[in-house]
Amino acid sequence: MIVCKFGGTSVASAGQIQKVANIVKENPKRKIVVVSAPGKRFSDDIKVTDLLIDLAETALQNGAVEEKLQNVVNRYKDIAEGLGLDRKIVEVIENDLRERLALKAEKELFMDTLKASGEDNNAKLVAEYFNSIGLKAKYVSPKEGLVVNDPPERTFALPETYENLKDLGKGEEIVVFPGFFGYTRSGRLRTFDRGGSDITGSILAAAVKAELYENFTDVDCVFSANPKVVNDPIGIEEITYREMRELSYAGFSVFHDEALIPVFKLGIPVNIKNTNNPSAPGTRIVPTRKPNGRPVIGIAADHGFSTLYVSKYLMNREIGFGRKLLQIIEEENISYEHTPSGVDDISVIIRSNQLTPEKEERIVKRVKKELHADDVYFRHGFSMIVIVGEGMRRNKGLAARAASAISRTGANIEMINQGSSEVSLVFGVLQEYEEQCLRALYEEFFTPVTI
Amino acid sequence: MIVCKFGGTSVASAGQIQKVANIVKENPKRKIVVVSAPGKRFSDDIKVTDLLIDLAETALQNGAVEEKLQNVVNRYKDIAEGLGLDRKIVEVIENDLRERLALKAEKELFMDTLKASGEDNNAKLVAEYFNSIGLKAKYVSPKEGLVVNDPPERTFALPETYENLKDLGKGEEIVVFPGFFGYTRSGRLRTFDRGGSDITGSILAAAVKAELYENFTDVDCVFSANPKVVNDPIGIEEITYREMRELSYAGFSVFHDEALIPVFKLGIPVNIKNTNNPSAPGTRIVPTRKPNGRPVIGIAADHGFSTLYVSKYLMNREIGFGRKLLQIIEEENISYEHTPSGVDDISVIIRSNQLTPEKEERIVKRVKKELHADDVYFRHGFSMIVIVGEGMRRNKGLAARAASAISRTGANIEMINQGSSEVSLVFGVLQEYEEQCLRALYEEFFTPVTI
Repeated sequence: MIVCKFGGTSVASAGQIQKVANIVKENPKRKIVVVSAPGKRFSDDIKVTDLLIDLAETALQNGAVEEKLQNVVNRYKDIAEGLGLDRKIVEVIENDLRERLALKAEKELFMDTLKASGEDNNAKLVAEYFNSIGLKAKYVSPKEGLVVNDPPERTFALPETYENLKDLGKGEEIVVFPGFFGYTRSGRLRTFDRGGSDITGSILAAAVKAELYENFTDVDCVFSANPKVVNDPIGIEEITYREMRELSYAGFSVFHDEALIPVFKLGIPVNIKNTNNPSAPGTRIVPTRKPNGRPVIGIAADHGFSTLYVSKYLMNREIGFGRKLLQIIEEENISYEHTPSGVDDISVIIRSNQLTPEKEERIVKRVKKELHADDVYFRHGFSMIVIVGEGMRRNKGLAARAASAISRTGANIEMINQGSSEVSLVFGVLQEYEEQCLRALYEEFFTPVTI
Repeated sequence: MIVCKFGGTSVASAGQIQKVANIVKENPKRKIVVVSAPGKRFSDDIKVTDLLIDLAETALQNGAVEEKLQNVVNRYKDIAEGLGLDRKIVEVIENDLRERLALKAEKELFMDTLKASGEDNNAKLVAEYFNSIGLKAKYVSPKEGLVVNDPPERTFALPETYENLKDLGKGEEIVVFPGFFGYTRSGRLRTFDRGGSDITGSILAAAVKAELYENFTDVDCVFSANPKVVNDPIGIEEITYREMRELSYAGFSVFHDEALIPVFKLGIPVNIKNTNNPSAPGTRIVPTRKPNGRPVIGIAADHGFSTLYVSKYLMNREIGFGRKLLQIIEEENISYEHTPSGVDDISVIIRSNQLTPEKEERIVKRVKKELHADDVYFRHGFSMIVIVGEGMRRNKGLAARAASAISRTGANIEMINQGSSEVSLVFGVLQEYEEQCLRALYEEFFTPVTI
């Protein structure tokens, strides 16, 4: 069995949903279809999810909701008409939305409930369409078994989900399942983080022990570097879970990395494909892969990093110094990325969005006072560049090649992290050098040398 | 005023002590002389300190001490005779030793008391000799004000020491002061760690606010790399405290690095000189130095490192993961050197001599259980190579050059630590590559390129 998930742009219009139907029809193994809410049809369009958030906020502020409600309904209406469906499905959706709006008193539930309607109603509509063209299908609600934890922790599926849903798709009909949300044991609707339809697909693939999880989106494949920075980067045919995860650390956002966990645990391969070009092989995410002749599979970069620098003479001899420093950071509820250290100094690399001038001042003061450090300060404006590849494990000159490529741009290497992961190498540079470095590294590792 | 300290080989024999006298005579600013116990006269010789340790241990086990006592006394006797001194000084020393031996009942004091006699009696002898040749001198005991902390912490000088000794050497006579020990507030003798005569000299230089602290030893200078590995390395004329400290992390052992603290705090320069070649300029350790045209001042290497590798999917998102890991290490009373990290993994680099199979097993078990890590294991047999230089701060291609030099030896770079210290760069390689890497790095940074 194959579980296939279609993202927002893949189900944004009647035309797109027809493509989805063709894809599903083409392979009878595609028995479970997870859908997002209708996304953008053109670049200035508004996603249904964003219309719903706006509607919910207006309702909470007791504003005029009718027009905003109609905006949402009209999106489904357009789709239904385009697909030649009976008007009834649009009434079903409109009634559903009005029922949800009536829940306004229960504030905590309200936002999740409205947002989730985007996927939920779209699943109903898609099921209706499949049936109308003779593709036997049924809408299945997450109420049938996708059980999630209670707040306030981030939403995740509880173990019973996998047992509850293990027979999904084993009937004759194709199951159309809305992405993005589940229900707590007490029946409360909770959404996953944004991008959560990927998570739903992954959970269902794991529950039914699918042979493949297809993730349909609007790109032919995952690229080896950001095409907005690197000119025409090569596509990735096959990548391991681990490589994908390490790349996603620094801005590779095709796929929500938490979503990989359920399939990763069972070793189920993932295929990222393009709804608009389904014959392209796409990118396969697999447990292990054969070497492809290149040590590096991808290069990613992200900015917005700060460093806290701390030095103290003979720090190196003090048991507990690093731990106490990290404790101070932790007490400000800050997570950190790396802690490169010299002989008597250590830096803590932090995503800048976790810092405020007050937090920084408190941290500097505490480190000086409690750890008797000689020198303590913050620096801002760094980018991290991560080079990833299972082939790096045995490639001896790789760090030297990467460092040389960066140096050629004129950038100073502010940080190198090598020594733990065998499949990645992280460099820190000043933000203004990020794009140059990305291009230089791409050239170093992906351009065939011609003499 | 200049405080000069003479190490063990500089005071090992009558001939050596004559050299010391000539050095002291030559500059009237040399008003405070700190002496070690007589060291080795030739490579198979036994240091007086080692004879004393053997004597103390024999006494504690109620063995026959007389012959061992005579061995010690004979060393001083030889020196006294060689210097043409009256026999009386030898009797003073012999009586002193017998008195110390009589303290055997007070076990805790005993070892320190016997060890310290090496320096103490040598200072008396040297003062006697100075006077005999018309160089007005007096022996001053650390009892006169070098106050140290109580056990069990490592010995260090208490703040009142600097007040107590501030007028030392301001009289007419040259002060001859034994290195290596002080007295607690309650009058108990305590030695510093081995190499502690360097510490005494540094404390006295700080107390009298000396213009210079001269540290006489048996080499012309500190070398830019280990002469046993690198053929004829260049000598270092001037080096900053910080560079010296960073080099000493990895095996540069000319100077006890803790000894630098008192002079470092006051910015007093240190001159390492050769008793056997006093006209050589030696190596000056200074607060700041002028660039000398080379980014690197020295390269050092040390082996005997292990790494603890820990990986966990999405570790990176968990606040407190690194801190908890370091806490487990700390609870085994282990200090660590570095913690390079990838996206979802972290390694802890530890000196192997702190580990036992039992400790390793406990740590691996706890990390798996308490941190739910996916993968946890130890690896052994690493060397750390540290490249040091204030000039590295603004030298952009340096990491690339270093990494390339290492790669040319065929070694895999197991770890790079750059990102904290601006004056050093640490590489980890397998132990068997240590010497090759040291030579390759020396060639890269010290050999002038000839075309």
